[in-house]
Amino acid sequence: MARRHRSDRRSVLRAAQTASPPRERRGEPEARPPLVQARRDTGGWIYGRHAVRAALQNPARRLRRLVVTADLAAEVRAWLAGAKARTAEELQLETLDRPRLEALLPEGAVHQGVALQAEPLPAAFIEDVLAELSPATGSAVVVVLDQVSDPQNVGAVLRSAAAFGAHALILPEHGTPPGTAALAKAASGALELVPLVRVTNLARALDKLKEAGFWCVGLEEGGEKLLGELDLAGRVALVLGAEGEGLRRLTRERCDFLARLPTRDPLGSLNVSNAAAIALYEVARRQPT
Amino acid sequence: MARRHRSDRRSVLRAAQTASPPRERRGEPEARPPLVQARRDTGGWIYGRHAVRAALQNPARRLRRLVVTADLAAEVRAWLAGAKARTAEELQLETLDRPRLEALLPEGAVHQGVALQAEPLPAAFIEDVLAELSPATGSAVVVVLDQVSDPQNVGAVLRSAAAFGAHALILPEHGTPPGTAALAKAASGALELVPLVRVTNLARALDKLKEAGFWCVGLEEGGEKLLGELDLAGRVALVLGAEGEGLRRLTRERCDFLARLPTRDPLGSLNVSNAAAIALYEVARRQPT
Repeated sequence: MARRHRSDRRSVLRAAQTASPPRERRGEPEARPPLVQARRDTGGWIYGRHAVRAALQNPARRLRRLVVTADLAAEVRAWLAGAKARTAEELQLETLDRPRLEALLPEGAVHQGVALQAEPLPAAFIEDVLAELSPATGSAVVVVLDQVSDPQNVGAVLRSAAAFGAHALILPEHGTPPGTAALAKAASGALELVPLVRVTNLARALDKLKEAGFWCVGLEEGGEKLLGELDLAGRVALVLGAEGEGLRRLTRERCDFLARLPTRDPLGSLNVSNAAAIALYEVARRQPT
Repeated sequence: MARRHRSDRRSVLRAAQTASPPRERRGEPEARPPLVQARRDTGGWIYGRHAVRAALQNPARRLRRLVVTADLAAEVRAWLAGAKARTAEELQLETLDRPRLEALLPEGAVHQGVALQAEPLPAAFIEDVLAELSPATGSAVVVVLDQVSDPQNVGAVLRSAAAFGAHALILPEHGTPPGTAALAKAASGALELVPLVRVTNLARALDKLKEAGFWCVGLEEGGEKLLGELDLAGRVALVLGAEGEGLRRLTRERCDFLARLPTRDPLGSLNVSNAAAIALYEVARRQPT
């Protein structure tokens, strides 16, 4: 495959980016059952001001219970007035003292005086994400996480993905955290904005992205080129692995490019959420809105 | 002052970067008592593989006690053989079962089977950091955090600072976390590599940096220019504020430039450690080693 021939990579990438994606479409996705399955998040309690406010704004959320401490009641009532969520009209605002509110939540939860119990979001599928990109959408970015197990890291990546307008965060169903409250809190509202797509087979998900015109850029310390040396226009999937272990072989082999960041020894490794933020920034810098 | 005149900024910055820093030196720092005080970190327990291993490698660390679970004993013994810390020779390796090891540490500590009790690191002073930069050192970067209170965020910034070769992390003594185990763990060893300078007066610390030829770049969402539009060669101090609150007025006024990152609505704000990583990357990209 020409893409895999090293010296051809840049010229091929440029050529593909000039032509409209998708670069290739094998078969009819609509006619087949989804190859890639997603898992529902665990729902339950969401806490923290940003996370709760964003959930109230999300029309796809079905809400059960909203609890606040007295000092925050007026502010949260104002949020409800502007809320878009389907059940906001019927939702009662419960004022609880701090110990009673905390008794509802995991120990040590940084709730900031407000918590919301909600149904899990509907599962997001990679086909839906791709269907929302019209053929005319030349520029797009998604983040793919391989075996990142810390919900705070996944939440932080989701937050950066929202800040830089990424279209999805894709991660394998196994070995990654469910849509927990800790993830929602770290995402600071981004769980409501960026589809979190859980797939059973990450390599096949990368194939689907490639069929839809995405170039898959794997980040690892041993990458051949600096990320900044790649031409990152067009549709780009940023693929990051677990700290320490990096990308799994099957994931790495699916990447069109392996790139590194300009870190230095002796402590060259970045936290995965920081590496993702940098990669999203590098793409955004080249794709000004 | 010409630097403050907006239309002159870029040309003045370029001119200053062509000339060798320091751009100006008012008085003799050696002849004065340090204006900026630092606080010792709290020492005590450090846990987690990267954090403990880096502390064993740090000759400035005085070690008290090293405990491991049995499965990690051989690996940690190998670390000790290569350790540089002054008391490594006399240090006994204690093997404890997991509950006994955990009884020594804060609840929920992600210790990975190893913990080290050590004296706090000697306090770092801004004068020492500046003294280590010879007049010939044209390029340098430090990070300044204004009121960032989460030890995990400070630790994560320290880790990125080490990865990108920053010369110091400077933060006010009040309103920021001490050198706790949580900070050391998030820093993943970087606490041993990058001086953590605690100052009583952040505005005066920025003045000292400016006297030493640093350009102070404040990051905030309302910044006039994109960070990528600034000429970031030479000596640069990246100044970041607390999430939500941003930079305090006195801090903002000391900055030579206020820059923003190319984030988008509706969720434009980044986690402070992600914003710091991006800013460090942007400087490193322009200052290749």
